[in-house]
Amino acid sequence: MKAVGIIVEYNPFHNGHAFHLEASRKVSNADIVIAVMSGNFLQRGEPALVSKWYRTKMALLNGVDLVFELPYGFAVQKAETFANGAVSILDAVGCDYLCFGSESGDIDSFYRTIHYLNDEHENYENNIKQYMNKGVSYPKALALSYQQLPNSENFLDLSKPNNILGFHYIKAIIGQNSSIKPVTVARKNANYHDENFTSETIASATSIRKAIFSDEKKIKISQYVPEPTKKLLDEYMNHYGMYHNWENYWDYLQFRLIQASNEELQEIYEVEEGLENRLKAAAIQSTSFQEFMQKVKTKRYTWTRLQRLCVHILTNAQKIEMTKFTEKASYLRLLGMTTLGRDYLNQMKKHFRLPLVSKLSSFKEKEITLDITAARIYAMGLGGIQRQEMLKQEFIEPPIYIKK
Amino acid sequence: MKAVGIIVEYNPFHNGHAFHLEASRKVSNADIVIAVMSGNFLQRGEPALVSKWYRTKMALLNGVDLVFELPYGFAVQKAETFANGAVSILDAVGCDYLCFGSESGDIDSFYRTIHYLNDEHENYENNIKQYMNKGVSYPKALALSYQQLPNSENFLDLSKPNNILGFHYIKAIIGQNSSIKPVTVARKNANYHDENFTSETIASATSIRKAIFSDEKKIKISQYVPEPTKKLLDEYMNHYGMYHNWENYWDYLQFRLIQASNEELQEIYEVEEGLENRLKAAAIQSTSFQEFMQKVKTKRYTWTRLQRLCVHILTNAQKIEMTKFTEKASYLRLLGMTTLGRDYLNQMKKHFRLPLVSKLSSFKEKEITLDITAARIYAMGLGGIQRQEMLKQEFIEPPIYIKK
Repeated sequence: MKAVGIIVEYNPFHNGHAFHLEASRKVSNADIVIAVMSGNFLQRGEPALVSKWYRTKMALLNGVDLVFELPYGFAVQKAETFANGAVSILDAVGCDYLCFGSESGDIDSFYRTIHYLNDEHENYENNIKQYMNKGVSYPKALALSYQQLPNSENFLDLSKPNNILGFHYIKAIIGQNSSIKPVTVARKNANYHDENFTSETIASATSIRKAIFSDEKKIKISQYVPEPTKKLLDEYMNHYGMYHNWENYWDYLQFRLIQASNEELQEIYEVEEGLENRLKAAAIQSTSFQEFMQKVKTKRYTWTRLQRLCVHILTNAQKIEMTKFTEKASYLRLLGMTTLGRDYLNQMKKHFRLPLVSKLSSFKEKEITLDITAARIYAMGLGGIQRQEMLKQEFIEPPIYIKK
Repeated sequence: MKAVGIIVEYNPFHNGHAFHLEASRKVSNADIVIAVMSGNFLQRGEPALVSKWYRTKMALLNGVDLVFELPYGFAVQKAETFANGAVSILDAVGCDYLCFGSESGDIDSFYRTIHYLNDEHENYENNIKQYMNKGVSYPKALALSYQQLPNSENFLDLSKPNNILGFHYIKAIIGQNSSIKPVTVARKNANYHDENFTSETIASATSIRKAIFSDEKKIKISQYVPEPTKKLLDEYMNHYGMYHNWENYWDYLQFRLIQASNEELQEIYEVEEGLENRLKAAAIQSTSFQEFMQKVKTKRYTWTRLQRLCVHILTNAQKIEMTKFTEKASYLRLLGMTTLGRDYLNQMKKHFRLPLVSKLSSFKEKEITLDITAARIYAMGLGGIQRQEMLKQEFIEPPIYIKK
C-alpha cells in the first residue's frame, strides 16, 4: 500500500482541509492517508478548541486513515522543530509522500530556495545577527534577512506561513536522509491567519474559531465545515459544555506566575534571562490572558512565541526536557485509525522504525510524560465531572477506531 | 505603659475571644493589648474566612490596640514553631505579659509540667520514638508517650489543644530568655474544635464557620459574635461576594500537583520522601479538596499537618526557606492600630528589638517574600476585579488605623 503523509492541527477540520486531503490523495495516488496531528496544545501556543480525541474523530470521519500524535515537545515549538518531529514520524511509519499546502504550490521553488540559501549561507546568517541585535524577533529577522539577499525575489516568498512550514518540511526530509517524496498543493482561497470570511465555502480555522467564540450566535459556520465537524463540535459542547481557549487557563497561569520562584521560571523552556520578572509583574496587574499578553509583548518576542512560552509554564515544560526534542521523535503515539488504517498498521508495523504506543498505561518512556501532563493540564480547563473524566481518559483510552 | 500580649487567629472574632481579651486586660492590669495574628493562612492549614485586613479590623474594633502579623513561616506551622515566632514578636515589642486561654487555667501547672518533662526527658523521648516507629502521627505520639509517664495524670492534660499551645508559649519564653510573664485564663464553655453550638453566647470559631458555610441560611451567628464582627462579615460578603475556604483553592492545588515535577514537590516544606506520588495520584482522582484529603490521609499524618502541607504547595513554600523560621521572627509587620496603639508605637518603637514594617513596598528583607506570596495566593481565591484589588493591596496597603 502506498501512503501519503500530512501534517495537521485541525482546529477544527474545515472545507479547506478537506480540499487539501483530497488533493493529497490525488497528486500522490496513494492508497491511504496518514496524519501527524498536534495534541491538545498547538504550534501557535494555544489550547485546541476541542480535545485531540475529537479532532482525531474529525480526521478519520473526513478521510484520514491513521492519526499519530505529534509529541508536545515538537508540537509547541517553532516551525523548524515542529517540522523535524512531524517528518520523523511520517518517515518512521513508512510514508512514501508528504503532501503539504503552500502559498507557492510549486515544489521546485522550495528546493531552489533551499539550495540558494545554502549558497548564500554566510550573508544570510550575518543579516540575521544584525537584525537580532536590533531587538527584532527571530522570525522577523529571518524574513528581513532573506529579503535583503540578492535576487531573493526569484525564489520562494518566505513571508508566507505555509511556505515557511513547507520549507522546513523539506529541509527536515533532506536532513534526516528520508526517502519521503514531498509534494505540495496550492492553498485555496483563505489565508492562514484570515479572521474574516471571504469565500462561500472556504474559511481559515482562525475565522471559524472567531465565529465560534463570537457572541453573535447567528454566525453560521456550517457552510465552512463538513458535516462530521459540525456534528462533533455540537457533541463536544453537549458533553463538555464549552470550547477551550486561553482564558480557561488564565487562572492557572496567573497562579503559577505568582507562586513560582524566579529559579523555577528560569528553568522553563523559552524563558530567557530577566523575562521571569516581566511575566510575574504582568500577572499581578492583569485580569485576563489578553490583557496579560498585551503587557508582556515586546518587539523582541512574537505573540506566538510568548503564547508558546505560556503553555510551557502551564505544563511546566523545562529546558532540560524540551531540548531533547530537536531532531527526531522517539515513539509513535497512535490516536486513531479507520479499518483501512488498521490493515496498514497490521501489515506494516513490524517495519516501523519507532516503538508504537497504543495505550499509555503500557508504555514507560520518560519522554511521553510531557504529553501526559499536557493532556491533563488541558483537562483542567474543564470543571467538575467532565474534568475528572478527561484526566483519567488520557491514561486508559485506546486509539479511536472508525469502521469504514 | 504596661502591655499584655495575646496570640490569635480570630477566624472570626467571637464572644469567646471578647471574654479572653477582657480577662487578659484584667488579670495583667495592662494599659494596652497587643495581638500577634496569623495572616491569611492559619495554623491548621486553612485559608482564613476573611482576609487579615478584615480580621485586623475585628481585633481593633473589639478592643485590641496593636496588631502584628505572625509571618507565614511561623503561622502555618506546628505548635512549637508557631509559639516561638509569636512569643519572639511579643518580646520584641516590649510586652510585659502574655495571656493565653487554656483548658487548665492554672499557670503553675504549665511550669510543673515543663519541669517534670525535663526530668523525664529520656523516658519521654524513647516512648515517642517507639510510637513513631509504629506509624503513629507525631502529635498523637507525644500525647500517648506523655500519658505513659509515671504520675503524668498529676500534671497538665496535654491532650487539650489550648494546653498544648500554652505549654509551647511558656517553653518559648524560657528558651528565648524573655522577661515576659505568662498568665492564663480558663477558656469558657466551648471546646476549641466543637462543631455544634452548646451555649447561649459562646461558640467555637469552628462551629461559627460551619454555620456560615451551611446551606441553612436560618442559622444565626449573631448571638455568638460581637456587633463589629457581624458588620465586617457582612461587609466582606458585600464587597468580595464570598468567604474563603479550601474548596476555593482546590483547582490551584490540583493544577500544581498535576504539573509539578517530583523534584519540585520534594522541595516543598513537609513533603517527605514518597509522599509526592501519593499526592499526585490523589489529585487526579479527586473532584474536591475534601475528597482529595480523604484519599491522602494516613495514620502517619494528621489532617492538620496534611492541610498545612497543601498550603505550602499552594504558596510554594520550600524547605530551604521555611527552615529559616524556627526560633525567632526577624521583622515586625504592623497590620493595624488604635489611637492608643499608635501612642504606644511612637513612644516605644525606638526600643523595639526588630525592624518595624509598616508598608511592604519600603521593606526589602527576603524573608517577607513568603508573606507576600501567601497574601497573593489568598487573593487568587477571589475572581475578577476583587482578586485584582487584593493582589495589588498587599504591597501598598498602609496599616489600618482606628481612631478611638
